[in-house]
Amino acid sequence: MEAFSAAEIIAAKRDHLSLTDPQIDWVIEAYTRGAVADEQMSALLMAIFLNGMESREISRWTDAMINTGQRMEWSALSRPTVDKHSTGGVGDKITLPLAPLVAACGAAVPQLSGRGLGHTGGTLDKLESIPGWRAALSNAEMLKVLQDCGAVICAAGPGLAPADKKLYALRDVTATVEAIPLIASSIMSKKIAEGTSALVLDVKTGVGAFMSDPAKAKELAQVMVELGTRAGVKSLALVTAMDTPLGLTAGNALEVRESVEVLAGGGPADIVELTVLLAQEMLELAGIKGADPAAALKNGKAMDVWRRMISAQGGDPDARLPVAKENTVVIAESSGTILSMDAMKVGVAVWRLGAGRSRQGESVQAGAGIEIHAKPGETIAAGAPLYTLHTDTPAAFSRALAALQGSVVIGAMPVGGIDRLPLVVARIVA
Amino acid sequence: MEAFSAAEIIAAKRDHLSLTDPQIDWVIEAYTRGAVADEQMSALLMAIFLNGMESREISRWTDAMINTGQRMEWSALSRPTVDKHSTGGVGDKITLPLAPLVAACGAAVPQLSGRGLGHTGGTLDKLESIPGWRAALSNAEMLKVLQDCGAVICAAGPGLAPADKKLYALRDVTATVEAIPLIASSIMSKKIAEGTSALVLDVKTGVGAFMSDPAKAKELAQVMVELGTRAGVKSLALVTAMDTPLGLTAGNALEVRESVEVLAGGGPADIVELTVLLAQEMLELAGIKGADPAAALKNGKAMDVWRRMISAQGGDPDARLPVAKENTVVIAESSGTILSMDAMKVGVAVWRLGAGRSRQGESVQAGAGIEIHAKPGETIAAGAPLYTLHTDTPAAFSRALAALQGSVVIGAMPVGGIDRLPLVVARIVA
Repeated sequence: MEAFSAAEIIAAKRDHLSLTDPQIDWVIEAYTRGAVADEQMSALLMAIFLNGMESREISRWTDAMINTGQRMEWSALSRPTVDKHSTGGVGDKITLPLAPLVAACGAAVPQLSGRGLGHTGGTLDKLESIPGWRAALSNAEMLKVLQDCGAVICAAGPGLAPADKKLYALRDVTATVEAIPLIASSIMSKKIAEGTSALVLDVKTGVGAFMSDPAKAKELAQVMVELGTRAGVKSLALVTAMDTPLGLTAGNALEVRESVEVLAGGGPADIVELTVLLAQEMLELAGIKGADPAAALKNGKAMDVWRRMISAQGGDPDARLPVAKENTVVIAESSGTILSMDAMKVGVAVWRLGAGRSRQGESVQAGAGIEIHAKPGETIAAGAPLYTLHTDTPAAFSRALAALQGSVVIGAMPVGGIDRLPLVVARIVA
Repeated sequence: MEAFSAAEIIAAKRDHLSLTDPQIDWVIEAYTRGAVADEQMSALLMAIFLNGMESREISRWTDAMINTGQRMEWSALSRPTVDKHSTGGVGDKITLPLAPLVAACGAAVPQLSGRGLGHTGGTLDKLESIPGWRAALSNAEMLKVLQDCGAVICAAGPGLAPADKKLYALRDVTATVEAIPLIASSIMSKKIAEGTSALVLDVKTGVGAFMSDPAKAKELAQVMVELGTRAGVKSLALVTAMDTPLGLTAGNALEVRESVEVLAGGGPADIVELTVLLAQEMLELAGIKGADPAAALKNGKAMDVWRRMISAQGGDPDARLPVAKENTVVIAESSGTILSMDAMKVGVAVWRLGAGRSRQGESVQAGAGIEIHAKPGETIAAGAPLYTLHTDTPAAFSRALAALQGSVVIGAMPVGGIDRLPLVVARIVA
């Protein structure tokens, strides 16, 4: 005999009531062990999507998810731990240079990452384009890489918030992904269970982000900072622009190549700026004074951590990265200033080229993606290359080109400059 | 490759959009054949529950459900067809005397009925307490009974609106039963597929009904009358009182006994009144003039049809009805006028005694139920019998008695009489 009835809990949320702590604890635990069916949980998720949850409910829901699995801890480390999480964007490879950079400045970065779904890429998919590199580490291996290198980026094991894995797969097929309580609890359950002492959240907003509306992005940031703080994790969020792709590449190996350029002291200005800014926030939150992350990108210290971190997980930092079999160039149709470049359209094109997946478990192409030859604010001449598209499956070109239709607006530079989101839209503190 | 994505259809309804006709056709058809999963349909049902459907959507949803199965037709009959459907109440055995009564007055009544769930009883459960009677008939058998007797009451075969069977089971466990578009489409898909030319709906309201709020009950009635009319079925609805149990019995064999009393020219006044009223509406809708249903109850014509109809389905109209093994009497605690009797409390008690089921497929007790010895408006003396409870499982008495706590209010008759719903709350025409 179960302590609660799933139908009664669904009905309560359906009727705009708050769920009690014992109801939340039971429904998450019972769902994870299979006593609440998928069709019951999806009805509850839709009721949560439409009727919301109050702050206490979200916090309890998150705790209940954490309690379905193990909680990691890093007291064996001599350095303070700090992590970063991005809600996902197009060309967002910031984790790749950032984790080694923050480690080079004295913190430990225990990052559990995920794979991509839909138009946004996943950190693990990107790193897996490096020959030999493996995402799956045991807890002991993770600790060793962290001790030896100061940073580790790997997959969350099956023991970490297993409720989230089950819920995430369900939300994906039932149109219940984009609800703030569900996004916040999914992200924060994993980050809190991961055992980091401090966390900087990069909440993307703009047309290429899950939270395209800046007000909604700020609300999500606020909820996540509150959840982290309640759980004893020093938390802070930046709401940052995702109207235009980040950097000049989107696609797995293409983004690794660009990340290595940044670690070598070069790379696109927007990537460098956001990487340094997030590193400063992380280091401050971790209590590390006097570090100079901009210098650590230039002087090779971050690159050194990167090379050791990749090697420690079986990867060859000197290996040639995979290149797609086919490519095609898209040229500008008119001359002028690029007034905007739609991150969502580029993201969908990258996905259709084979760099992303439509369902969990699908494989992705390492070499597929898009190189961007000019960004908003820059001038371009008619006939000059705008994008280079890469794929192993040339049949994908036509669908990718269709997605790119209207992705760029070229015109005369307006008085006062082009209209785009500032890199940092808001900074949310506890 | 499917024509649509379930997640996109769910997202549309979630975002308050109207579903298109092709979306509705596909999602119902694909769900019925298993290409849309239960967890996707339950999320869609919750979105429909919370965001509603417009009139066109409900109509199309109903048609799509009908199109998953066969549609019956009765053109071989010489008489006009007319049916009645009740949304379910406590002690509502009206179908039992009504179908033979309307047949005795010259119409054909092809009634496909259901089983009970929760606190309301089902017509088939009641009739199955008659030794030998069987609910499952082939279409040919159904036509023969209808031709020979003028009325038939049987179970809907698996070929009739199979989408509804699957949806109903899903709604039951996902707290998505009580939504007007879903209730209306469920009822009307079966009634339209049943092929009746005319239909009178008895929509119950008050504390013992699914639609306890009279305004909601009227809305449901309106939606169903509209659905029937659009589909070419002459439709009309009465919204009737279910604040107090109907008649003096609730429970399967107990209600058959009471129905036979009515067919014998006796029985409780409220049952007789509602039966005659519904018969008049049905006969008028069927275009039969000059019939006198009240007389047909008194002169044995309705009883004659009943006996032939029960016999034609293998039942023995003269057989002794099952009696529960145990009974106990509840007495009045004070003297005075019965001011109210809570239909929901009585219904839950009857269910707990074993006459009802909690899940589809559970068996019910033929003899279990409650006899009511005095009704609202009547006077009672302290210590006089109020209810007799019947069950085969005496352990159920304590749970049934708990449900009956506070079910009756006894006091001084107020000036102006007791406050209860009129028998007919509203009459809804196309």
